[in-house]
Amino acid sequence: MSAPVTRTLARYIADSRYADLPPAVVHEARRALLNWLGCAIGSARYDTVENALLAISPFAGPPQAAVLGRTERLDILNAALINGISSHVLDYDDTHARAVHPSAPVLPALLALAEWRGLSGADLVHAFVLGVETECRIGLSVFPEHYEIGWHITGTAGVFGAAAAAGKLLGLNEQQLTWALGIAATQSSGLREMFGTMCKSLHPGRAAQNGLTAALLAQRGFTSSEQGIEAPRGFARVMSTKFEPAIITEGLGEHYELSLNMYKPYACGLVVHAAIDGCIQLKREHHLRPADIERVELTTNPLVPELCGKRAPANGLEGKFSVYHAAAVALIEEAAGEPQFSDAVVTRPDVVAVRERVFATADASVRKLEAHVSIIMKDGRVLKKHVEHALGTVERPMSDGDLEAKFRVLTDGILSRAQSDRIITLCWGITELENAAALALAAVPAH
Amino acid sequence: MSAPVTRTLARYIADSRYADLPPAVVHEARRALLNWLGCAIGSARYDTVENALLAISPFAGPPQAAVLGRTERLDILNAALINGISSHVLDYDDTHARAVHPSAPVLPALLALAEWRGLSGADLVHAFVLGVETECRIGLSVFPEHYEIGWHITGTAGVFGAAAAAGKLLGLNEQQLTWALGIAATQSSGLREMFGTMCKSLHPGRAAQNGLTAALLAQRGFTSSEQGIEAPRGFARVMSTKFEPAIITEGLGEHYELSLNMYKPYACGLVVHAAIDGCIQLKREHHLRPADIERVELTTNPLVPELCGKRAPANGLEGKFSVYHAAAVALIEEAAGEPQFSDAVVTRPDVVAVRERVFATADASVRKLEAHVSIIMKDGRVLKKHVEHALGTVERPMSDGDLEAKFRVLTDGILSRAQSDRIITLCWGITELENAAALALAAVPAH
Repeated sequence: MSAPVTRTLARYIADSRYADLPPAVVHEARRALLNWLGCAIGSARYDTVENALLAISPFAGPPQAAVLGRTERLDILNAALINGISSHVLDYDDTHARAVHPSAPVLPALLALAEWRGLSGADLVHAFVLGVETECRIGLSVFPEHYEIGWHITGTAGVFGAAAAAGKLLGLNEQQLTWALGIAATQSSGLREMFGTMCKSLHPGRAAQNGLTAALLAQRGFTSSEQGIEAPRGFARVMSTKFEPAIITEGLGEHYELSLNMYKPYACGLVVHAAIDGCIQLKREHHLRPADIERVELTTNPLVPELCGKRAPANGLEGKFSVYHAAAVALIEEAAGEPQFSDAVVTRPDVVAVRERVFATADASVRKLEAHVSIIMKDGRVLKKHVEHALGTVERPMSDGDLEAKFRVLTDGILSRAQSDRIITLCWGITELENAAALALAAVPAH
Repeated sequence: MSAPVTRTLARYIADSRYADLPPAVVHEARRALLNWLGCAIGSARYDTVENALLAISPFAGPPQAAVLGRTERLDILNAALINGISSHVLDYDDTHARAVHPSAPVLPALLALAEWRGLSGADLVHAFVLGVETECRIGLSVFPEHYEIGWHITGTAGVFGAAAAAGKLLGLNEQQLTWALGIAATQSSGLREMFGTMCKSLHPGRAAQNGLTAALLAQRGFTSSEQGIEAPRGFARVMSTKFEPAIITEGLGEHYELSLNMYKPYACGLVVHAAIDGCIQLKREHHLRPADIERVELTTNPLVPELCGKRAPANGLEGKFSVYHAAAVALIEEAAGEPQFSDAVVTRPDVVAVRERVFATADASVRKLEAHVSIIMKDGRVLKKHVEHALGTVERPMSDGDLEAKFRVLTDGILSRAQSDRIITLCWGITELENAAALALAAVPAH
């Protein structure tokens, strides 16, 4: 028999107190909250979100919770779904250093629930930290085999995070939390086959909605197995060939998975980040003018040309899979956010002109988030930069100011400057907020 | 590369016409509909349904669809969920001869959609036949390995059936149906670990709701992989070690899986059915009086004592796992429906007295749905019955009259006699019904 990890985890969640959380972990939650809101608001008008809203709106319940970046209001289960979808549309949300996008499946459930019930910001942060702990530990207990089999771990593990977090916010006891984790287990789903389609974003949306439902059902005495994670026919053994139960329970309350959270400074796949980072640093340090650049040479991990080797991207989406475009636009605009991956920018002649002078060499000794950038200037100078850890990694985190800037770019054109300022202020002060509804309402554009 | 079975199946569903269906298959759909309605109405007041309704009611949308056997009305997605749960609470719903409970995941989605949109009974029947075809073929393509790994195939395959059926009823085209099947694939879930808990019934409920959602999303252009079933990281290869794609596409439109549907005459596990059947036949043929019985000897498949070997069941639920109680009550009441598995009947002295005279011998040469029954009378006579195929199997189906009687017992005390009569009439005439809403409304008890 496996150790009773489902119940042990449920007991930890039930017993945890806000005062137990280290201040650094609480601050990481504030940062994750701000980053998540920017991602969700920033994609509020994308087709993926529009299509999902059109499909479910005729069936939605009372207007209990905001749809981020939009004026519609939905019942909390559908709000969790839609805000979970929008969290991930740009693939710009946070990433745990080893697996799982932590915020997208959890925060949509929590913010909707907190808004509806008028719960405090401190309770929301507490529940969020526990949700991240739950999904990351469960995910890592079956990782990487679970992912390699084909499961999108942000969906499959995320549903546990949402159930645990929503359960904590609802004040469930150990028995109810044990059931909630079991109800989450039996809804765990999401195939990597869906990458590249709208369904990729459906995964955190469903995880948020199903995890929230699991907590609500458990609250009403809806029973499940009490060994949903570890039983011979439970989550771990059915959905992975590896299972290390100790990863779920060892050191609970001693170290926090949220401490290993990373935020993307650039609006494209992580593997390109080190090259972009090096280009931006050289641009800043030397005040480079594109016209003075003869040639750009990148030395990167082999995954970079494999995943992002598009020589001549034709549109914004293809630009995200072109290390050549990414380096060029970084050298011209000193940035690589969503605007730098628009159709217009990707096809702009001055960007194309620099792109054609970018060359990449794969080197297996270079790590995924490492790069060497050399710029040969027309005057013969050679400027070099070795990026050992790309900006946004745990080793070199984005600053709070970086996160604010990212948020402003994402929400530009959707929220007013004053609204964005207000959300930033609310996020940094979230633990003092008596009613977290204020944050949800601040994310609604003025008509 | 696998054959493009997802698209081939979508094309078949899109192109199928009601007039193509053989009359016998249409009639089997009528029988399945009546049997399903009895099961769902019959458990409408069970805790599993009450708890789920309490949990989700605050978030439900407009009153678009009936909750069977109750007076609440919900939006169609939540109605599909609740009616899907109630379908399976008694474990008395239909069973395909090889795998999958076909109706529970599909009909709740269809009836809710048909009621809301005022669609015809013939369209509902057509969509149902295609949904059963879809879930059974997909299920069988990965069976039995998929089930043995730990997946509850009624949930995991059922979601495809609901998506296909709802998609057909919504009039989706081939492309949309391809997406709908992919959206279903990435929501496929449900662990056998949950057997014995309320979550077992959640599986067809979620399958109905998620399949319906898949069709609604696809209708709005929400994209998925177009090889959701067969891709290397699609449903079949991620969730099973066996995959025979030809099972999904061979002979589409030539044979129908619904022809292999079975209905349970007795409210307990299938393995006990042959023994019950033999006892009821002997009781009828010889007008047996319990007081005249000395001893009852059953010879059964070894699974019978293994799964249903409770010698002294203490309550109704335990009675379902006691072949001794089942045989005794069959000899006394000439029936083994829900009333015969109540706490009161299981502990009644006259039932216990006969139960103690029942003995069972396991014999590996006896098939699961076969039994030999010998009754030794006090006057020395020995009455024997060999049940080669239990009532309810494909070889010896329940008659239409048997199904009517089962329906009446299940709905007794919930609907009036007149209401039950009306539903029976509507089911036999379903293909002439211009608006299927009449059927849903007939399943609502008078206040």
